[in-house]
This record gives sequence, C-alpha cells and structure tokens, in this order.
Amino acid sequence: MAYINLRPDLYGITSLLDFRPEAAAPLCRLTQLLLRGESTLTEAEREMIAAYVSSLNACTFCSSAHTAATCLLPGGSETGIEPLQTDLEALLVSDKMRCLLRLAGKVQKNGTQVTQEDIDAARQSGATDLEIHDTVLIASLFCLYNRYVDGLATMTPTDPEFYINLGTRITTRGYLMPEDGYHATDYKPK
Amino acid sequence: MAYINLRPDLYGITSLLDFRPEAAAPLCRLTQLLLRGESTLTEAEREMIAAYVSSLNACTFCSSAHTAATCLLPGGSETGIEPLQTDLEALLVSDKMRCLLRLAGKVQKNGTQVTQEDIDAARQSGATDLEIHDTVLIASLFCLYNRYVDGLATMTPTDPEFYINLGTRITTRGYLMPEDGYHATDYKPK
Repeated sequence: MAYINLRPDLYGITSLLDFRPEAAAPLCRLTQLLLRGESTLTEAEREMIAAYVSSLNACTFCSSAHTAATCLLPGGSETGIEPLQTDLEALLVSDKMRCLLRLAGKVQKNGTQVTQEDIDAARQSGATDLEIHDTVLIASLFCLYNRYVDGLATMTPTDPEFYINLGTRITTRGYLMPEDGYHATDYKPK
Repeated sequence: MAYINLRPDLYGITSLLDFRPEAAAPLCRLTQLLLRGESTLTEAEREMIAAYVSSLNACTFCSSAHTAATCLLPGGSETGIEPLQTDLEALLVSDKMRCLLRLAGKVQKNGTQVTQEDIDAARQSGATDLEIHDTVLIASLFCLYNRYVDGLATMTPTDPEFYINLGTRITTRGYLMPEDGYHATDYKPK
C-alpha cells in the first residue's frame, strides 16, 4: 500500500508518473536522452548502469525492470546480470564497462566518493569525457528514481513476468511520455 | 579542477548545464516545476528542503546556493538556516516543515528508510498527499544534483558573495534554461 493515493492498478514508477504528469514529462525526456539518445555506449550498457545502481540502492522495482531491459538488448544477457546484483566482479563486461560501473557505484554512495584514480582508470580503459559524464548522470538519475519509488512505497510486483513485460516496453518504445504506453495498465501481476 | 573538460569560467551545476545542454533542458524544467511552480509550500520552504538535503549530502555548492536562496525569500532568513546545516532541531520552522524535512532526510539516506510513522506524522501536522509527494521528489532530485556536481568535481567557489549572487538569480529569475541567465558567467569569485 503506497504512502499516498496512487492509482491501484499501476506499479512502481508508473504510478508516480501518473500522479504528477507535469513532473513525469521532463523526467521521461531526461531518461530517454540518457538511455536511448545517441551515445557511444550501447543501450544495454546504459541500462546496466541503471540496473546496477538500482541494485546498490536495493530498489527491487527499478533493479528488476532495468535488469530485464538489459537482458532484452543485444549483448545484455551475456553479461550474466541478475536483479539486485551488486557483485561487480561476477559480471562479464569489458574493462571500460567495469570502470564505468565502478564509477557509478561510487556515485551511488555520494559524489564526493569519486576519486581522480577512478576517472584515470576509466579514461585509460578508453572512456571519453562524455561517457564519464553520462555514467555519472545516469547513476545520479537512478539515485533519484530509486528514492522516489521506494520513498513513497509504490507497489512492487513479485512476478518476474511483469518485469519482462515492462522491459519489453522500455526496450521497444523507450521512455517517452506515459501516453506512449509506459504505464503498463494492460498487464496485471498475478 | 573538474574531472572532465568543463568551461573554466563556470562553477558547480552551471558548468554541467553548459556541458550537456540537452540534459540541462529537462533538468531545469523539473526544478522550475518543483521549486517555483504552483504549490501550497512556499518557495522558501521548498528551497529549504533542497538546502537541507544538499547539506546532508555534504555538497557545498548546492547547500550554499539553496541556503542563500532560502534566506533571500520571504520567511527564509527567520529559520536560522545556514550552509551545510544538518541539525534539524536548530531550525525555527513549523511542525509541518519539521516533519517534511525529517521525511526528506530519510529519503536522502534511501527511499526504504521512510516509514508509515514518518508519513502519519507529516499528515497529522497538516501535510497533503501532494506536499508529501513533492517533498520526496525534491529530496530525490537533490540527491541527483549533489552527486552530479560532486561526482565530476566541479569547481566550488569559497566566496560567500558568489552564492548570494547565485541565490539572487534563482530567486528572481527561477531555474528555466541557461540562456535565461542561470550561468552566472558575469560573476567571478575572488
């Protein structure tokens, strides 16, 4: 039971996007830019940063949704990522992605935790300024989403099929406005 | 020295808004909605939530800027808020604001830290669903900003006059796009 009066047939972030559409509009645009916009990071790589940070924040809804999205994108399932996975060493990723995920993990704790050594390691593994920037901003954005979703106690389905369905939507339709179908109102978890 | 190549004459968040204007646009719109849009919370109360969360995250740039903004708005300076102030009990605020700031402090740690008792206390002090929602989202947004600003080691002026100048801008012009004057390029800290 959520802490505020949200639509009972909506879940997680989707119930909040519905509650405050004026806030949803810029949030969705920022997410679409960072996770689906032009980038030298693949969509699977960017979804993995979102999933990893959400796992570190123990946000089951976001971690499950973005892990599902990662695995549905080319190259994603081969990484071995799972919902709520916080063990970076267990992931099969490139050196660059490992450095960027480690950077994202520092940001998850606090911005002041990032060191020059973290940045140097990322750059030596081939990361550009824009990739470093976007990693920090994606990690920061999911620190927002995770708090928003859990801080208001939105409903978190336990059925894995819900997240496969949601992952399919966000990998095929992206993050643009709720009216584009992000709400998942036609799927009810068991 | 920032971790990526930012304009050397810009500081804190303003240097990041300049680096990635496509991300700046939705971020500024969300901030304008939450801190300057129609609300039953005053602008000073909303700035205080931003300042308090930024203080808990030890983000000197954001804490200083939003404390200055709070004090420049009607009712703000009477609260006794100071930059990097994390002692809630020392603030002279209404019962409702104390409950909302306590809620924001829980969100700063993690969304899962918020309890039904926190929500009940806020509601008993007169807070509405929308005020509770906006408090959680403002706190979450500043968890994003603080990580973004510190995670990339943007330049943090030490001169208090810089923050009074920036506070004056954001209380008179708001948060809309950088071209509206948010950049503060005409002020150089000593």
